Amino acid sequence: MTYAPITISAKFDLFSEQWQPKVIAEMNDYQFKLVRLQGDFVWHSHADTDETFIVLHGQLRIDFRDGAVELKAGDMFVVPKGKEHKPYAATEAQVMLIEPRGVANTGDLAAGERTASNDVWV
Amino acid sequence: MTYAPITISAKFDLFSEQWQPKVIAEMNDYQFKLVRLQGDFVWHSHADTDETFIVLHGQLRIDFRDGAVELKAGDMFVVPKGKEHKPYAATEAQVMLIEPRGVANTGDLAAGERTASNDVWV
Repeated sequence: MTYAPITISAKFDLFSEQWQPKVIAEMNDYQFKLVRLQGDFVWHSHADTDETFIVLHGQLRIDFRDGAVELKAGDMFVVPKGKEHKPYAATEAQVMLIEPRGVANTGDLAAGERTASNDVWV
Repeated sequence: MTYAPITISAKFDLFSEQWQPKVIAEMNDYQFKLVRLQGDFVWHSHADTDETFIVLHGQLRIDFRDGAVELKAGDMFVVPKGKEHKPYAATEAQVMLIEPRGVANTGDLAAGERTASNDVWV
Protein backbone atom coordinates (compact mmCIF):
# COMPACT_ATOMS: atom_id res chain seq x y z
CA MET A 1 0.00 0.00 0.00
CA THR A 2 0.99 3.63 -0.36
CA TYR A 3 1.24 5.51 2.89
CA ALA A 4 0.48 9.22 2.91
CA PRO A 5 3.09 11.69 4.08
CA ILE A 6 2.06 14.58 6.32
CA THR A 7 2.75 17.71 4.26
CA ILE A 8 3.20 20.47 6.80
CA SER A 9 2.46 23.42 4.49
CA ALA A 10 -0.76 21.74 3.29
CA LYS A 11 -1.88 21.36 6.90
CA PHE A 12 -1.31 25.10 7.48
CA ASP A 13 -3.52 25.83 4.48
CA LEU A 14 -6.45 24.16 6.29
CA PHE A 15 -6.84 26.86 8.93
CA SER A 16 -6.26 30.57 9.35
CA GLU A 17 -7.07 31.35 12.98
CA GLN A 18 -4.25 32.38 15.28
CA TRP A 19 -3.23 31.01 18.70
CA GLN A 20 -5.25 27.80 18.14
CA PRO A 21 -2.82 24.85 17.89
CA LYS A 22 -3.88 22.03 15.58
CA VAL A 23 -2.56 18.49 16.00
CA ILE A 24 -1.12 16.90 12.85
CA ALA A 25 0.63 13.81 14.23
CA GLU A 26 1.33 11.80 17.35
CA MET A 27 4.49 9.96 18.43
CA ASN A 28 3.91 7.78 21.49
CA ASP A 29 2.20 10.19 23.94
CA TYR A 30 3.58 13.32 22.25
CA GLN A 31 1.83 15.54 19.75
CA PHE A 32 3.02 17.65 16.83
CA LYS A 33 0.92 20.80 16.57
CA LEU A 34 0.85 23.66 14.09
CA VAL A 35 -0.04 27.16 15.18
CA ARG A 36 -0.22 30.63 13.66
CA LEU A 37 1.00 33.28 16.08
CA GLN A 38 0.76 37.05 15.85
CA GLY A 39 1.01 39.66 18.57
CA ASP A 40 1.56 39.04 22.24
CA PHE A 41 0.56 35.96 24.19
CA VAL A 42 0.14 35.62 27.97
CA TRP A 43 2.85 34.71 30.45
CA HIS A 44 2.62 31.04 31.38
CA SER A 45 4.65 27.95 32.11
CA HIS A 46 4.24 24.19 31.86
CA ALA A 47 4.98 22.66 35.25
CA ASP A 48 5.44 19.11 34.03
CA THR A 49 7.11 19.28 30.64
CA ASP A 50 9.54 20.96 28.30
CA GLU A 51 7.98 22.49 25.17
CA THR A 52 9.57 22.61 21.71
CA PHE A 53 9.09 25.46 19.22
CA ILE A 54 10.20 25.10 15.59
CA VAL A 55 9.62 28.21 13.47
CA LEU A 56 8.57 27.32 9.92
CA HIS A 57 7.71 30.75 8.56
CA GLY A 58 8.24 34.26 9.88
CA GLN A 59 9.92 35.21 13.11
CA LEU A 60 9.08 34.54 16.73
CA ARG A 61 10.43 36.00 19.94
CA ILE A 62 9.98 34.07 23.17
CA ASP A 63 10.28 36.32 26.19
CA PHE A 64 11.47 34.98 29.52
CA ARG A 65 11.56 36.79 32.85
CA ASP A 66 15.34 37.02 32.47
CA GLY A 67 15.70 37.58 28.73
CA ALA A 68 14.47 36.36 25.37
CA VAL A 69 15.27 34.20 22.36
CA GLU A 70 14.73 35.38 18.79
CA LEU A 71 13.80 32.64 16.32
CA LYS A 72 13.56 32.88 12.56
CA ALA A 73 12.32 30.28 10.08
CA GLY A 74 14.44 27.17 10.47
CA ASP A 75 15.27 27.82 14.11
CA MET A 76 14.08 25.85 17.11
CA PHE A 77 14.14 26.22 20.88
CA VAL A 78 13.13 23.98 23.77
CA VAL A 79 11.56 25.90 26.66
CA PRO A 80 12.49 24.08 29.87
CA LYS A 81 9.83 22.68 32.15
CA GLY A 82 8.55 25.27 34.61
CA LYS A 83 10.16 28.28 32.86
CA GLU A 84 7.79 31.21 32.41
CA HIS A 85 7.58 32.34 28.81
CA LYS A 86 5.56 34.59 26.53
CA PRO A 87 5.67 34.17 22.73
CA TYR A 88 5.49 37.31 20.57
CA ALA A 89 5.41 37.78 16.79
CA ALA A 90 5.27 41.20 15.11
CA THR A 91 3.78 39.64 11.97
CA GLU A 92 2.26 36.20 11.66
CA ALA A 93 4.63 33.33 12.35
CA GLN A 94 3.93 29.69 11.50
CA VAL A 95 5.22 27.46 14.25
CA MET A 96 5.37 23.74 15.06
CA LEU A 97 4.95 22.85 18.73
CA ILE A 98 5.98 19.47 20.09
CA GLU A 99 4.89 18.46 23.56
CA PRO A 100 3.05 15.71 25.43
CA ARG A 101 -0.61 15.14 24.66
CA GLY A 102 -2.83 17.19 26.96
CA VAL A 103 -0.62 20.26 27.39
CA ALA A 104 -2.62 23.49 27.34
CA ASN A 105 -1.31 26.45 25.36
CA THR A 106 -1.63 28.70 28.39
CA GLY A 107 -0.21 26.13 30.78
CA ASP A 108 -3.59 25.72 32.43
CA LEU A 109 -6.83 24.66 30.77
CA ALA A 110 -8.71 27.06 33.04
CA ALA A 111 -6.51 30.08 32.34
CA GLY A 112 -9.16 32.09 30.54
CA GLU A 113 -10.00 33.38 27.10
CA ARG A 114 -6.56 32.75 25.61
CA THR A 115 -6.77 29.02 26.36
CA ALA A 116 -7.33 27.13 23.12
CA SER A 117 -9.34 23.97 22.70
CA ASN A 118 -6.99 21.06 23.13
CA ASP A 119 -6.48 18.02 20.94
CA VAL A 120 -8.03 19.59 17.83
CA TRP A 121 -6.71 17.82 14.72
CA VAL A 122 -6.37 19.18 11.24
CA MET B 1 20.20 37.53 28.97
CA THR B 2 19.99 36.56 25.33
CA TYR B 3 19.23 32.92 24.71
CA ALA B 4 20.60 31.27 21.57
CA PRO B 5 18.26 29.70 19.06
CA ILE B 6 19.16 26.35 17.51
CA THR B 7 19.60 27.07 13.81
CA ILE B 8 19.00 23.76 12.08
CA SER B 9 20.83 24.53 8.82
CA ALA B 10 23.89 25.71 10.75
CA LYS B 11 23.94 22.43 12.63
CA PHE B 12 23.92 20.50 9.34
CA ASP B 13 26.93 22.54 8.22
CA LEU B 14 28.93 21.07 11.10
CA PHE B 15 29.07 17.53 9.70
CA SER B 16 29.06 15.76 6.36
CA GLU B 17 29.00 12.04 7.14
CA GLN B 18 25.91 10.07 6.27
CA TRP B 19 23.81 7.72 8.42
CA GLN B 20 25.30 9.14 11.64
CA PRO B 21 22.55 10.97 13.56
CA LYS B 22 23.66 13.99 15.60
CA VAL B 23 21.69 15.24 18.58
CA ILE B 24 20.87 18.97 18.54
CA ALA B 25 18.31 19.27 21.33
CA GLU B 26 16.47 17.40 24.04
CA MET B 27 12.88 17.73 25.24
CA ASN B 28 12.23 15.74 28.43
CA ASP B 29 13.63 12.28 27.57
CA TYR B 30 13.31 12.79 23.80
CA GLN B 31 16.03 13.84 21.38
CA PHE B 32 16.03 15.84 18.15
CA LYS B 33 18.64 14.44 15.78
CA LEU B 34 19.86 15.52 12.36
CA VAL B 35 21.04 12.98 9.82
CA ARG B 36 22.21 12.94 6.21
CA LEU B 37 20.86 9.91 4.35
CA GLN B 38 21.82 8.56 0.94
CA GLY B 39 21.32 5.12 -0.53
CA ASP B 40 19.72 2.16 1.17
CA PHE B 41 19.61 1.46 4.87
CA VAL B 42 18.95 -1.86 6.62
CA TRP B 43 15.57 -3.26 7.58
CA HIS B 44 14.91 -2.66 11.27
CA SER B 45 12.25 -1.72 13.77
CA HIS B 46 12.06 -0.09 17.17
CA ALA B 47 10.20 -2.38 19.55
CA ASP B 48 9.45 0.22 22.20
CA THR B 49 8.80 3.48 20.42
CA ASP B 50 7.41 5.33 17.45
CA GLU B 51 9.99 7.26 15.40
CA THR B 52 9.40 10.61 13.68
CA PHE B 53 11.00 11.62 10.38
CA ILE B 54 10.86 15.23 9.13
CA VAL B 55 12.50 15.80 5.76
CA LEU B 56 14.27 19.17 5.59
CA HIS B 57 16.06 18.86 2.25
CA GLY B 58 15.82 16.39 -0.59
CA GLN B 59 13.54 13.38 -0.77
CA LEU B 60 13.25 10.24 1.32
CA ARG B 61 11.38 7.01 0.78
CA ILE B 62 10.62 4.81 3.75
CA ASP B 63 9.93 1.24 2.69
CA PHE B 64 7.69 -1.01 4.76
CA ARG B 65 7.04 -4.70 4.27
CA ASP B 66 3.59 -3.79 2.93
CA GLY B 67 4.33 -0.59 1.03
CA ALA B 68 6.18 2.69 1.27
CA VAL B 69 5.84 6.41 1.96
CA GLU B 70 7.50 9.06 -0.21
CA LEU B 71 8.56 12.19 1.63
CA LYS B 72 9.82 15.45 0.18
CA ALA B 73 11.20 18.49 1.99
CA GLY B 74 8.54 19.77 4.36
CA ASP B 75 6.91 16.37 4.83
CA MET B 76 6.89 14.25 7.97
CA PHE B 77 5.92 10.73 8.94
CA VAL B 78 5.70 8.84 12.21
CA VAL B 79 6.77 5.19 11.90
CA PRO B 80 4.73 3.20 14.43
CA LYS B 81 6.40 1.23 17.18
CA GLY B 82 7.43 -2.23 16.02
CA LYS B 83 6.87 -1.57 12.30
CA GLU B 84 9.76 -2.75 10.12
CA HIS B 85 11.11 0.00 7.90
CA LYS B 86 14.02 0.80 5.62
CA PRO B 87 14.85 4.38 4.63
CA TYR B 88 16.14 5.06 1.12
CA ALA B 89 17.30 8.25 -0.61
CA ALA B 90 18.48 8.37 -4.23
CA THR B 91 20.44 11.54 -3.52
CA GLU B 92 21.35 12.94 -0.15
CA ALA B 93 18.43 13.88 2.07
CA GLN B 94 18.67 15.98 5.21
CA VAL B 95 16.32 14.62 7.85
CA MET B 96 15.33 15.40 11.44
CA LEU B 97 14.60 12.38 13.63
CA ILE B 98 12.68 12.69 16.87
CA GLU B 99 12.62 9.78 19.29
CA PRO B 100 13.39 8.89 22.89
CA ARG B 101 16.99 9.17 24.10
CA GLY B 102 18.84 5.88 23.63
CA VAL B 103 17.14 4.66 20.44
CA ALA B 104 19.63 3.06 18.02
CA ASN B 105 19.41 3.92 14.33
CA THR B 106 19.30 0.22 13.47
CA GLY B 107 16.87 -0.64 16.23
CA ASP B 108 19.57 -2.55 18.06
CA LEU B 109 22.90 -1.19 19.33
CA ALA B 110 24.51 -4.53 18.42
CA ALA B 111 23.13 -4.73 14.88
CA GLY B 112 26.48 -4.40 13.12
CA GLU B 113 28.41 -1.96 11.01
CA ARG B 114 25.41 0.24 10.12
CA THR B 115 24.77 0.99 13.80
CA ALA B 116 25.82 4.57 14.52
CA SER B 117 27.30 5.86 17.75
CA ASN B 118 24.45 7.04 19.91
CA ASP B 119 24.00 10.33 21.77
CA VAL B 120 26.58 12.22 19.67
CA TRP B 121 25.84 15.94 19.84
CA VAL B 122 26.68 18.60 17.29
